Amino acid sequence: MSQYYPIDGTSSLIYPDISAQNLQPMKPLKLGVMASGNGSNFEVVAQAIQAGKLNAQIQVLIYNNPSAKAAERAKNHGLEAVLLNHRDYKKRENLDRAIVKTFRQYDVDLVIMAGWMRIVTQELIDAFPDRIINIHPSLLPSFKGVRAVEQALEAGVKITGCTVHLLRLEMDSGPILIQAAVPVLPDDTAETLHARIQIQEHRILPLAIASLAAR
Amino acid sequence: MSQYYPIDGTSSLIYPDISAQNLQPMKPLKLGVMASGNGSNFEVVAQAIQAGKLNAQIQVLIYNNPSAKAAERAKNHGLEAVLLNHRDYKKRENLDRAIVKTFRQYDVDLVIMAGWMRIVTQELIDAFPDRIINIHPSLLPSFKGVRAVEQALEAGVKITGCTVHLLRLEMDSGPILIQAAVPVLPDDTAETLHARIQIQEHRILPLAIASLAAR
Repeated sequence: MSQYYPIDGTSSLIYPDISAQNLQPMKPLKLGVMASGNGSNFEVVAQAIQAGKLNAQIQVLIYNNPSAKAAERAKNHGLEAVLLNHRDYKKRENLDRAIVKTFRQYDVDLVIMAGWMRIVTQELIDAFPDRIINIHPSLLPSFKGVRAVEQALEAGVKITGCTVHLLRLEMDSGPILIQAAVPVLPDDTAETLHARIQIQEHRILPLAIASLAAR
Repeated sequence: MSQYYPIDGTSSLIYPDISAQNLQPMKPLKLGVMASGNGSNFEVVAQAIQAGKLNAQIQVLIYNNPSAKAAERAKNHGLEAVLLNHRDYKKRENLDRAIVKTFRQYDVDLVIMAGWMRIVTQELIDAFPDRIINIHPSLLPSFKGVRAVEQALEAGVKITGCTVHLLRLEMDSGPILIQAAVPVLPDDTAETLHARIQIQEHRILPLAIASLAAR
């Protein structure tokens, strides 16, 4: 009786959308980035800066996994990358202290967790109060935790998305800066849905950094 | 450093959007509607039918509150309205049995809870398996319960919305049919946010009914 006309898979709702911002010649925000894996969010931040869309500079990338592709991306951009292998630290606190020390050495203002797969401690949070942002692949508060995309599929939601928020000790909580919503299509797998969400992550992460830079 | 250009307050993402459906000349779906208050969702369903956008007919409205504006709306449309005052029933089950009896008398196929403010029981759910739909003012599974809009504001989310789902005994759960996402604007109160969500409720409720009519 009816036919479905699914909207384009990349249709989305982003709020707030500050992409029309005017960049003023101000002192650029000094970023420290943390990544464990592919580093695609690190890449989009680096590219947004290079394209003059983000008044910031990446001081250093910290990665915890020797094979993280993020490190290679840093090299390609001529950016500093420091390996802090979590296997070298007996306690989470010790790793976080090393992270804080590194960020201080590199004079970092704002910390970006761009796919950091380790649980962080109060050591890190206290060192950068309200200056650590995280990106999570769901419309928080729905679907916290590492299986966010799978959980959204299992729950049968028709709309999910991603959230950039300030980090708090409780996982995937903290004040929300920007969210983006995308549809869950009938044939989605975790992979196709995650890919659609990541397109939006790559849009809202630079916007969130810009909104903090504007404060 | 940057300026916000908030998107239009009524911008939204709806999925699935079957508004481009082709209505075929089939037997119309016979609806029973339950409402406790204003009945604006009842109104949009009645109007969608009148406008030929929905191949259905409203057999009867049940309302539980003698002063419900929904009853007046039914009268204006020349539709049957039956008052089943919850104060006349000692147990929830007894009220639900009266509801089921009424819907059977009026030969109802599909039950629409359009702002029904009473907790329902298994009596009602078992009588119309997978044939009762509810509309809730949040992107479920976030913000279940009667304070959904206030909770979204308190949580500081930037995107919320509404959900049409099949009714299950556990409140605000059950298979999701359609969702719509809207932004939460900086100056929103519960009233302004609820009004923005209701605009989307009025869009997705007829779509959800159409999608079931098409099965």
